[in-house]
Amino acid sequence: MSAPVEVPLKDAYKLLTHGPTVLVSSAHGDARNVMTAAWNTVLDFDPPKLVVVVDKHTYTRGLIEASGELVVQVPTRDQAALAYALGNESGRDGDKFARHGITTFAGSKVGAPLLEGCHAWLECRVIPEPHNQQTYDLFIVEVTAAWANPAVYRDGRWLDAPEQPGSIHHVAGGAFFEAGGMFSVAGETLG
Amino acid sequence: MSAPVEVPLKDAYKLLTHGPTVLVSSAHGDARNVMTAAWNTVLDFDPPKLVVVVDKHTYTRGLIEASGELVVQVPTRDQAALAYALGNESGRDGDKFARHGITTFAGSKVGAPLLEGCHAWLECRVIPEPHNQQTYDLFIVEVTAAWANPAVYRDGRWLDAPEQPGSIHHVAGGAFFEAGGMFSVAGETLG
Repeated sequence: MSAPVEVPLKDAYKLLTHGPTVLVSSAHGDARNVMTAAWNTVLDFDPPKLVVVVDKHTYTRGLIEASGELVVQVPTRDQAALAYALGNESGRDGDKFARHGITTFAGSKVGAPLLEGCHAWLECRVIPEPHNQQTYDLFIVEVTAAWANPAVYRDGRWLDAPEQPGSIHHVAGGAFFEAGGMFSVAGETLG
Repeated sequence: MSAPVEVPLKDAYKLLTHGPTVLVSSAHGDARNVMTAAWNTVLDFDPPKLVVVVDKHTYTRGLIEASGELVVQVPTRDQAALAYALGNESGRDGDKFARHGITTFAGSKVGAPLLEGCHAWLECRVIPEPHNQQTYDLFIVEVTAAWANPAVYRDGRWLDAPEQPGSIHHVAGGAFFEAGGMFSVAGETLG
């Protein structure tokens, strides 16, 4: 793949506003993990914030709370089976990166690893909100750096490139919608 | 369209987990409104909860806070231009339903109107969380009833029906991704 290019923080919301299922990586000390999170949303533009739902029984949960950091990445269609597997295994049962042969690279702001081959990456720090975390498994994070594969996103927009694998949108039980064509209605008039 | 069929509350998450842009309707007294919200996510399974981001400058915000209710609906591809318009107008400038010729029907649990022609509808009550609402424009709601168009969702799943308009996923400035094909990886093996 092409080397990731940095996305200005003011544009970070464009990487997630369309609602893709994401991979959440985390690390603390020698421990690391990656899990899948369909339940996420952008929360604010600038500084960009996100909401990510992380169940309190996951291995990731402890790593996030201990480090105060995570990385949200947008997987490709080719990574759908991997995304499903990562969402149905626990890091307590062994290192998922090794099991799946996942290669990573380092971020610029956080210690959690970035997974190669994704569409986009958002390095985040947790904004501590204990009530939300305890009661709802709801984490509010601020994006501190963002990156995208220039083959699918550049100059402030996703490319309308049918040959690219689209983002994936989990429904339930391993069933996903694939992102189809991009279209614009900005010039359309209403009936 | 076919008459909406009720979706069991335990399945309500399946209507939104794939991350569509939604329409949020609200009402209080004689006032009503509908706005577009790309920033939303499922928060829990059962009882089902959602997160919806509603800016404090919107007309909808006051109606939601006064009534404690809202309806989240999943618009179709054919409603994309409408969704974009509803996200760029204010209910303070006149009734959006009348302006766009939107027809509605009544829900079973809330007073806010349900828009005809959508894929799915989730009637919701606000779980009051003043800190989240004030600081982040973040609303946590519980789904009290859910409905779907049986032409696109029935028996606990979205139909894989290419002839149906897909859900829409806003990126920015009137550019959307359309939900493409459904696929399952539950039987796929990893490399």
